Amino acid sequence: AVGEVWLVGAGPGDPDLLTFKALRLMQQCDVVLHDRLISPQVLDLVRRDARRLFVGKARSQHAVPQEQINAELVRLAQQGLRVLRLKGGDPFIFGRGGEEIDTLMAHGIPFQVVPGITAASGCAAYAGIPLTHRDHAQSCVFVTGHARKDGTLDLHWDQLARRGQTVVVYMGLHTLPALCAELIVHGLPPQWPAAMVEEGTSPSQRVVVGTLGDLPQRVEAAGLKGASLLIVGEVVRLREHLAWNAGGVKDA
Amino acid sequence: AVGEVWLVGAGPGDPDLLTFKALRLMQQCDVVLHDRLISPQVLDLVRRDARRLFVGKARSQHAVPQEQINAELVRLAQQGLRVLRLKGGDPFIFGRGGEEIDTLMAHGIPFQVVPGITAASGCAAYAGIPLTHRDHAQSCVFVTGHARKDGTLDLHWDQLARRGQTVVVYMGLHTLPALCAELIVHGLPPQWPAAMVEEGTSPSQRVVVGTLGDLPQRVEAAGLKGASLLIVGEVVRLREHLAWNAGGVKDA
Repeated sequence: AVGEVWLVGAGPGDPDLLTFKALRLMQQCDVVLHDRLISPQVLDLVRRDARRLFVGKARSQHAVPQEQINAELVRLAQQGLRVLRLKGGDPFIFGRGGEEIDTLMAHGIPFQVVPGITAASGCAAYAGIPLTHRDHAQSCVFVTGHARKDGTLDLHWDQLARRGQTVVVYMGLHTLPALCAELIVHGLPPQWPAAMVEEGTSPSQRVVVGTLGDLPQRVEAAGLKGASLLIVGEVVRLREHLAWNAGGVKDA
Repeated sequence: AVGEVWLVGAGPGDPDLLTFKALRLMQQCDVVLHDRLISPQVLDLVRRDARRLFVGKARSQHAVPQEQINAELVRLAQQGLRVLRLKGGDPFIFGRGGEEIDTLMAHGIPFQVVPGITAASGCAAYAGIPLTHRDHAQSCVFVTGHARKDGTLDLHWDQLARRGQTVVVYMGLHTLPALCAELIVHGLPPQWPAAMVEEGTSPSQRVVVGTLGDLPQRVEAAGLKGASLLIVGEVVRLREHLAWNAGGVKDA
């Protein structure tokens, strides 16, 4: 009999932010495919005797290409296994969940998708930066800062460089200087608030607050290296105003 | 001694999507302030002997105005109580969490913010509509469809009426005809895919799929009335392609 695949969002890092549904499936699976965005504390909660397959992907050293992950999910399910595809954050927000279920459907493999807390929500709450606010941000846009093969960014700058909204950039650490520069070129002032949250919601969370003009230097000075989320907009200032000090989380 | 306030995201409806952190605080509070977006199944999980305060808000009959909720949180915490402010979805995405913590900070009340799964994530996963997809949506924007007092919508249409992105509209049921019309006026084709998800993630979830041109009639014909989320973009088509049939959730 064919098995099934559970595409599960593990949230932003803190195991306390797992959902009941996620944990239940984690404790029922035969095999788990996970990547480097899954914290060891979360992975520890997977059923002890489930096989663990690490499928990457660190930047610029994709341990296993996406096509191969898709094929592996199918292969394992066809062996009758209950396959857990555990993803950081939410599978349908920059999680490539859509591509994985495309393949599963094409092969007639039963599957379930379980949403998780996306990094934007987790980092916002743990860093004290509301993503929307009646007075400062009536909308919120999520983009990825991942560069194309030629090193450039494929973003609609005129759409992002606007007041009255919050821009959240996933995977923007390595393109931060270009991101900030383009937003200034397209009309936001160099004094526009921006913050980078590293390892958001984890005990090692660090928050670097600055402006489009100085954030790249501040982030470099702080030596951020881990998974990081960029938040751009006036809501960042609310954090300072609030003298945020939640749960002992420290600023960089 | 002063108490504290826990601003907790309860997620989109399914109690199985509560986080461990949310449930723990729900079981420790002395009093809970909740609104109509909290499902009875979730409210049932709050500590039995906690006092329950319903603070609205149904559309156009705001049971308790926001300023009064803010003041109530302060008043209860000053009595030394552990106050749970339980919110549908995520407190920092259209949850007015920013305004509530403004007030708490001004009064020196200790507080915590716990993120929840926002409606966009929950509805996407349970309706089979990825919010981002390498081929169809490289970004995702969240706005609110709540009308101003004069009945008009305060949205940047040129920014929303674009290909290659997914637009999610919270609270857009009552302004759906205007939303669709404006998106067409600003350049999206009438055939552009759009879906409305009612009571997303709950057992009574209904999904109405159509286009900008016909969704308002379809939604009216289906008689959607409950909390609804609008998703606009090519990703909606993936759902049909996928012949989605997750967990017995039915289409309208």
